[in-house]
Amino acid sequence: MRKIAIIGVGHVGATVALDIVQGGYADELVLIDKNPAVAKAEMWDLQDSLSLQAFHTKIIAGDYSDLEDADVVLSTLGHIELIKPAGDRFTELRANIPEIQEVAEKLNLSKFNGILIATTNPNDVIVDMYARLLHLPKKHIIGTGTYLDTARLKRQVADCLGLDPRTVEGYVLGEHGNSQFAAWSTVRIAGRPFTEIAKERGIELEVIEENARQGGFAVFDTKRYTNVAIAAATVGLMNLVLSDAKNIAICSHYDEKFDSYISTPALIGKDGVEEIIDLPLTEIEKEKLQASADEIQDKIKKFG
Amino acid sequence: MRKIAIIGVGHVGATVALDIVQGGYADELVLIDKNPAVAKAEMWDLQDSLSLQAFHTKIIAGDYSDLEDADVVLSTLGHIELIKPAGDRFTELRANIPEIQEVAEKLNLSKFNGILIATTNPNDVIVDMYARLLHLPKKHIIGTGTYLDTARLKRQVADCLGLDPRTVEGYVLGEHGNSQFAAWSTVRIAGRPFTEIAKERGIELEVIEENARQGGFAVFDTKRYTNVAIAAATVGLMNLVLSDAKNIAICSHYDEKFDSYISTPALIGKDGVEEIIDLPLTEIEKEKLQASADEIQDKIKKFG
Amino acid sequence: MRKIAIIGVGHVGATVALDIVQGGYADELVLIDKNPAVAKAEMWDLQDSLSLQAFHTKIIAGDYSDLEDADVVLSTLGHIELIKPAGDRFTELRANIPEIQEVAEKLNLSKFNGILIATTNPNDVIVDMYARLLHLPKKHIIGTGTYLDTARLKRQVADCLGLDPRTVEGYVLGEHGNSQFAAWSTVRIAGRPFTEIAKERGIELEVIEENARQGGFAVFDTKRYTNVAIAAATVGLMNLVLSDAKNIAICSHYDEKFDSYISTPALIGKDGVEEIIDLPLTEIEKEKLQASADEIQDKIKKFG
Amino acid sequence: MRKIAIIGVGHVGATVALDIVQGGYADELVLIDKNPAVAKAEMWDLQDSLSLQAFHTKIIAGDYSDLEDADVVLSTLGHIELIKPAGDRFTELRANIPEIQEVAEKLNLSKFNGILIATTNPNDVIVDMYARLLHLPKKHIIGTGTYLDTARLKRQVADCLGLDPRTVEGYVLGEHGNSQFAAWSTVRIAGRPFTEIAKERGIELEVIEENARQGGFAVFDTKRYTNVAIAAATVGLMNLVLSDAKNIAICSHYDEKFDSYISTPALIGKDGVEEIIDLPLTEIEKEKLQASADEIQDKIKKFG
Repeated sequence: MRKIAIIGVGHVGATVALDIVQGGYADELVLIDKNPAVAKAEMWDLQDSLSLQAFHTKIIAGDYSDLEDADVVLSTLGHIELIKPAGDRFTELRANIPEIQEVAEKLNLSKFNGILIATTNPNDVIVDMYARLLHLPKKHIIGTGTYLDTARLKRQVADCLGLDPRTVEGYVLGEHGNSQFAAWSTVRIAGRPFTEIAKERGIELEVIEENARQGGFAVFDTKRYTNVAIAAATVGLMNLVLSDAKNIAICSHYDEKFDSYISTPALIGKDGVEEIIDLPLTEIEKEKLQASADEIQDKIKKFG
Repeated sequence: MRKIAIIGVGHVGATVALDIVQGGYADELVLIDKNPAVAKAEMWDLQDSLSLQAFHTKIIAGDYSDLEDADVVLSTLGHIELIKPAGDRFTELRANIPEIQEVAEKLNLSKFNGILIATTNPNDVIVDMYARLLHLPKKHIIGTGTYLDTARLKRQVADCLGLDPRTVEGYVLGEHGNSQFAAWSTVRIAGRPFTEIAKERGIELEVIEENARQGGFAVFDTKRYTNVAIAAATVGLMNLVLSDAKNIAICSHYDEKFDSYISTPALIGKDGVEEIIDLPLTEIEKEKLQASADEIQDKIKKFG
Repeated sequence: MRKIAIIGVGHVGATVALDIVQGGYADELVLIDKNPAVAKAEMWDLQDSLSLQAFHTKIIAGDYSDLEDADVVLSTLGHIELIKPAGDRFTELRANIPEIQEVAEKLNLSKFNGILIATTNPNDVIVDMYARLLHLPKKHIIGTGTYLDTARLKRQVADCLGLDPRTVEGYVLGEHGNSQFAAWSTVRIAGRPFTEIAKERGIELEVIEENARQGGFAVFDTKRYTNVAIAAATVGLMNLVLSDAKNIAICSHYDEKFDSYISTPALIGKDGVEEIIDLPLTEIEKEKLQASADEIQDKIKKFG
Repeated sequence: MRKIAIIGVGHVGATVALDIVQGGYADELVLIDKNPAVAKAEMWDLQDSLSLQAFHTKIIAGDYSDLEDADVVLSTLGHIELIKPAGDRFTELRANIPEIQEVAEKLNLSKFNGILIATTNPNDVIVDMYARLLHLPKKHIIGTGTYLDTARLKRQVADCLGLDPRTVEGYVLGEHGNSQFAAWSTVRIAGRPFTEIAKERGIELEVIEENARQGGFAVFDTKRYTNVAIAAATVGLMNLVLSDAKNIAICSHYDEKFDSYISTPALIGKDGVEEIIDLPLTEIEKEKLQASADEIQDKIKKFG
């Protein structure tokens, strides 16, 4: 049995739930929201679709007492409504902090003993907070981090070449926030460095990187939230854990070297972040990564 | 190549788009909204997920000039924000009418020649309007009608017996609105009439029927929209058309007998509603169906 | 984690494995064959496809010591090569009996404590034998029984009407063998009895029933085995167990009334056959079911 | 509508058909075999599963007159039974040549105008033969080539590191035959050259390369055929064409530089091989590629 719980049934949580039910990824799906009516409404809408789904899922608008035997808990709560257009993910921090504290306390009481994956922003600060509050090993706490920003970079790179984004390799590293950066030395298409291709074709790396960084805000400015890509990233990470995939994915994990949560590639399996992968980087990229780690540390000290 | 277009990228349209991209059901997906920024924002969010999807989909924030060779157009526009809690699907009609007229005019100019499936409410009135305005055979215009209400009934019946909703057979007939009714003589579980089971166990049919009818509003009261189940129904119908399934599904289609669009089971294939299926009904059910048809006619005369 | 094991990696077992890996239904898949080279060869072929699959599956050519924590074991062993064209499923019994005894002994030693689903033929005799040999409750031992014959009947009925087989309701009951019968009173299309439609259109029920019964042999005569539909039936039942679906499916299960394993509809969930469903049958059908149960009993006494 | 045809319904063709029906990738699937009974038997087995599938597929045991409007034709015929253990893909050539000539003639008469993807071996010689015989542009004729060998290499590399094969990037280039080679300079894991990792851990590249090259024969020695991975590769390429993915995949395509069909990465879309991708290779790898091209040329002259 695969038992998954979603804490925070806003736009992201609801879309994650939809992805899970459509894919048949959970045998039991628990929806938890501080407003129980919200979890119930989403449960009803999902249940109304069950006669049309390929797989059966037991969907419960539940609470923390349901989590003792959950395999994965997804923290998707947030206050995106507090972010201003083209804003900063820290705007919502003040609202998220007390909620995370409450969630962590309840998770500890629930005896939940699985893997926690969080999308809540500012992501690195939040997972760091979870790591300090929860009675779980650090490697069992994962942030979606720059998994999403990496997907956005792949789309931007692919778009300017007219390619399928799945053909682009590479990473956005660091903070899921303004200090993130495209590690251009890692970006390749069919083995060829994108920097070479960009030079040949007069593509400006800075423009692409900025487009990727601002990708979420471009969506947010009109929709007032983003959900599709972040939900896909979350479910992708979850499936790597559930299937014990030993896949290397980028996510926010605790790194002793920086004494911080930060996004670099990691080996994901049923034991969470089973190994941090040593990525070959240029000196400039190493500096940027350190700077981004410092930025995260600063924010943790200030807000965490 | 399968080319699908979505007109109206609100909550329903966006969820339909998500289902299509995740399932790989379209090779090309065109998003159209009267506010092009909305179509673009949704396109971006979907595109940001493409490196994480199992299938590639070409996603375009397009316009009507893209529709000449579309296989299916999904009309998902609406103004659910105008509906008051526990309200009536007609509240939004005044806002939808002029938009439907505009969409129909543009569809005619586009030389679109495929199948139109509409979720727009009040569904039967809207598809009747499309049928009068569009240069398409009536059988190429389908409303989701009581497909959704049927799914909701199955859930309610299944819930009170602790069963998988996929085990429940049967139909909600008539208007996708207040005059709809559960055709209890058609509701069976493993071949056994549910009316018998209900009598044995003291289950009140009226309560279940009312729960199914109010199912959408229960979701709506909290979420302010419903999207999951209606999207699943829409995509379900679309896939029957695309695969020329010759499947019998309930939907709103033109029925000469009532000179009206109304939901009863129909044979769905690549030619749209290829046949209306003669459903054995009790006399009372026949009267209810006629009454629902009259109700739809009244509304068409009044608003259509 | 979902852990599944397949015992017997012939054509059926290999196709079941393929379905599972492509669907991502197992996190761990154990292949066991009395000839370990066969399990290994299939494992290698499946593993060679893993970089191309949407989901990761840990595939192991294992042995019984891997089964203690398996959720479901699928017994797909058999000796279809012993069946002569248009033959009888009993031809292979003599070869299957000693193997089933060995498998049961090893399963008991393994402390396997999940659900066993068997396709091995003659199916009802084999699951009865498993039930007597295994240290498992009878309800945890399921035969695919006439699930497959029911699927074949649906195809035959659908074909003669030009319909999607998914639109046909109804059951083939009794033995997965020559005494099986189509319970025509249960066969409906959109709620309408197929017997009525058949009468209207001059369709002979006997011809359809015989086609369904001989369906497997028609395939077998050329291919020398059947695998696609039986694998789909097996994986379908397995998914109902894994997801605790509380779905009503037809399968071979122990029925006190007949003191025998026999196929009638049953409620399937994580506890196996959770309930036998009382199906309304005509007197003639009841007699046929009793006769089929007697036939199974005779065979059990003779061979079991 | 997506219309796909399979020519040659042996183990590979049947598995490709199964993958397509389970994935719902075709709206219409035409099975063609020189022995019509074989196509029919497979059609029946597939059709018997249709009531259990998530999608409807129209499955036809057809002939070449059905191919005029097919999107993709898959040539999966072959005589693997002629290959001896640890043998050579050329053993079956003598039997395949006259069949390919016959298929090509019939395809020309059918006015088929889509994309042909061939798994038939020796793959490069066969697609070259198709290219000379068919009235199709060369870019519309694709061989699966070393797509499969690349998948096998990824598995071998992943296995020795305990990783998900999807984390391995890189290519096997050249002939789908004994002159193929792992282009080690292209093999990376999370951006890091595998050659570095191998050196650190004392992994011998030659052993891995040989395991990948012999992977098929290891399966073949026991099963007497391989089907799972080659079917996944074929369906993978097919889906790239159907969805016009602009994905870079390795396959056998005509390369002017070598005046030969040979496997290197290529851009795949609805126009077939839309572009050959310039892969950065070492001097030794370039020589190996030239040698492999020469080998293919020799074989074409000798047998083609």
